[in-house]
Amino acid sequence: MEIEEVKELLENKKFNELKNKLSEMKCADISTILDELDKESVIKVFRILSKEKAGMTFSYMESDMREKLIQDLTDAELKNVMDELFMDDTVDLIEEMPSNIVPKILKVISKEDRKTINELLKYPEDSAGSIMTTEFIDLKETMTVEQALQRIRKIGLDSETIYTCYVLSENRILQGIINIKDILLSKKEKIIKDLMETNIISVTTEEDKEEVAKKFDKYDFYALPVVDKENRLVGIITIDDAINVMQDEVTEDFEKMAAIQPNEDGYFETSVFKHAKNRIVWLLVLMLSSAFTGSIITQYEEAFAAVPLLVAFIPMIMGTGGNCGSQSSTLIIRGLATDEIEMKDILKVLWKEIRVSILVGIALAIVNGIRIMIQYQNIQLAIVLGITLIATVTVSKILGCLLPMTAKKLKLDPAIMAAPLITTLVDVCSILLYFQVATSIMGL
Amino acid sequence: MEIEEVKELLENKKFNELKNKLSEMKCADISTILDELDKESVIKVFRILSKEKAGMTFSYMESDMREKLIQDLTDAELKNVMDELFMDDTVDLIEEMPSNIVPKILKVISKEDRKTINELLKYPEDSAGSIMTTEFIDLKETMTVEQALQRIRKIGLDSETIYTCYVLSENRILQGIINIKDILLSKKEKIIKDLMETNIISVTTEEDKEEVAKKFDKYDFYALPVVDKENRLVGIITIDDAINVMQDEVTEDFEKMAAIQPNEDGYFETSVFKHAKNRIVWLLVLMLSSAFTGSIITQYEEAFAAVPLLVAFIPMIMGTGGNCGSQSSTLIIRGLATDEIEMKDILKVLWKEIRVSILVGIALAIVNGIRIMIQYQNIQLAIVLGITLIATVTVSKILGCLLPMTAKKLKLDPAIMAAPLITTLVDVCSILLYFQVATSIMGL
Repeated sequence: MEIEEVKELLENKKFNELKNKLSEMKCADISTILDELDKESVIKVFRILSKEKAGMTFSYMESDMREKLIQDLTDAELKNVMDELFMDDTVDLIEEMPSNIVPKILKVISKEDRKTINELLKYPEDSAGSIMTTEFIDLKETMTVEQALQRIRKIGLDSETIYTCYVLSENRILQGIINIKDILLSKKEKIIKDLMETNIISVTTEEDKEEVAKKFDKYDFYALPVVDKENRLVGIITIDDAINVMQDEVTEDFEKMAAIQPNEDGYFETSVFKHAKNRIVWLLVLMLSSAFTGSIITQYEEAFAAVPLLVAFIPMIMGTGGNCGSQSSTLIIRGLATDEIEMKDILKVLWKEIRVSILVGIALAIVNGIRIMIQYQNIQLAIVLGITLIATVTVSKILGCLLPMTAKKLKLDPAIMAAPLITTLVDVCSILLYFQVATSIMGL
Repeated sequence: MEIEEVKELLENKKFNELKNKLSEMKCADISTILDELDKESVIKVFRILSKEKAGMTFSYMESDMREKLIQDLTDAELKNVMDELFMDDTVDLIEEMPSNIVPKILKVISKEDRKTINELLKYPEDSAGSIMTTEFIDLKETMTVEQALQRIRKIGLDSETIYTCYVLSENRILQGIINIKDILLSKKEKIIKDLMETNIISVTTEEDKEEVAKKFDKYDFYALPVVDKENRLVGIITIDDAINVMQDEVTEDFEKMAAIQPNEDGYFETSVFKHAKNRIVWLLVLMLSSAFTGSIITQYEEAFAAVPLLVAFIPMIMGTGGNCGSQSSTLIIRGLATDEIEMKDILKVLWKEIRVSILVGIALAIVNGIRIMIQYQNIQLAIVLGITLIATVTVSKILGCLLPMTAKKLKLDPAIMAAPLITTLVDVCSILLYFQVATSIMGL
């Protein structure tokens, strides 16, 4: 169903038809429609949804619309929504909402849950603890398969996943994991201890959520246990949350690589002023650094006064250098992000980039040489530009490979060493190379 | 266990100790070690692994090492490995291996499986069909929960996931899906038809795998059914494969945005020659296009002959324009990739970018003006550069927003409209603006 149809049904008060159509839709799709409706329509549509669907739809909605909705819902309605949310989504909600809304949310949450929420809110923003949920299936190692199944049937409805179950000791130390497949495919009288996997990959509450996401990618898990310092199981992270982390990290890398300060909110949710602020810092730094390139040019005033044509090739030299540097740095940054390239590979990468540079540089020099000969019949100029191109390509590819790896070594994010910064550095080098080569060969 | 320890144990022929240590490791970690070992050691370690572990480890290994291993394994050993692989991994393997290795693989696969593999190999490279597996749990709608559980126990071991089960009619039309949680939490005598979800999101075999991955992200699925034109279920795609597609798409976007032709293989697996080839096409195009910028400069020879200082600011104007354009295009390209920005938002985005441009442009003009006044005490120059900066920032941000969206409209990948291309276009505009403003204000 499209948004226009929803509006029409609302206008004509065909609530029953709307209800039927909504019941056939996925919550993710309903939320997309709600995010686009006006405030009064949202509450009307939301009230038509079944309790289960309302909760799920709410969890997919954007934060500004959620805020409006919470203001309009009665306490009883809000309680129904909160009951359907898993603990990690509840915590996210509370973190997102302005402080005048939070008390209304907390009021409808049980005392026990409020305690858990307070614990979860204490974890640092980028930690595993901040994205985990506390609703999982815990088993004991002395249980039989039949007893385990009984326990799953009892608490399964409130668990975020039943795919992986966690075997805990009396004091909640994580002793093993077992997935539902192994339970279902085993005989009823078998003991969990004999079936469970004891070689467990777990993370601590403090671990960086980016590292957590990488573990999902590497080991193909559906869920990952989170333990405290005493190895007590305190929560789990499910794969859908890990995917969100991966996507956020990629967006952050893209932003950093385009000289933008990373921003948690989406494009439309960010104000014009905030957008300007996020972009201006790096622009200022880069603008002022380009004064170096300018001052190098000033030193060669006599050269381009003698051969004004030299100035016409500044954009080509600078552009090619920037592009070559950004090609290398992008490949290296992405390789480091996916762990394909590691610090120990630095010489291997450098050697590869140098060989690529020479091939690329020679090809560009030849094509450009042909163009110069056709356009200006000036072999001296063709040689000057050829040598400059090969040198610029090599220097920029070496910088494009060394700078991100140096950043990694210094425990900085390699993504800041991307196109904009490298371009500015390469500009200095290439202009210097260009005029140096030109003045020596042309005898200026 | 680290690779050094494995080498030492191998050298001292402590195979039993090695076997014990390996049995405690995850297959993904064993594969990392195997990928680094020499050929003779790999086969030795691989033969120590249990049948199940050998299959899983094999599926994580890199393709050049897998090729070497297949050459060395006996037919019986290879059969054991192939038995452990799911159909989608088998198809991937056959597609990756050189043609002289493929017959050895096919020889150990049963006739029936060979037929399925041939069917799967026919799907286009980027289609849902090419990444799906045919091993899933099929139920009938007349089954009771107890009968369904029996069926799961019978065929579960060979299914890639038992989390979602598929309810099919006699002629294998997909009628519903039901997940294991709903089966386990329902009474034994309930009928599947009354429990299953009939409002199903499925994809066809021809659907683009990138769109498939987006569905996983949007709906938080663990698996997605793939149907043919008659709505018959032919396979499923699991979330781990969807994550791989997402990661590959991101890498492809990064490559396109850095003016590199996308490449399926990893950084180290790609030869120097191939790397050069992938990078050179765009470099040539961009290098030759920069001739336009050069020819504009040539037209203003008289202006910079009169005021040589004008040349010194070419890098700053070009650099700032390129950076502003790349900021906007990166945000738009990423927004389009995550579906946060849609075509219908074009005016909203444009309006936002224009307002951001004015803020950013004014800020840069002021800072630069102060610098010029301190360094050169030349108010005319400060005004020329100020106007040029504001105009350049605005033009480049408008281009950075319109070009990716136009590409999307023309069904091209927006990622090609990133920094390198935009920078080259912005260069032309900014240089033209710069000299136009300079000549009018300075009366050159």
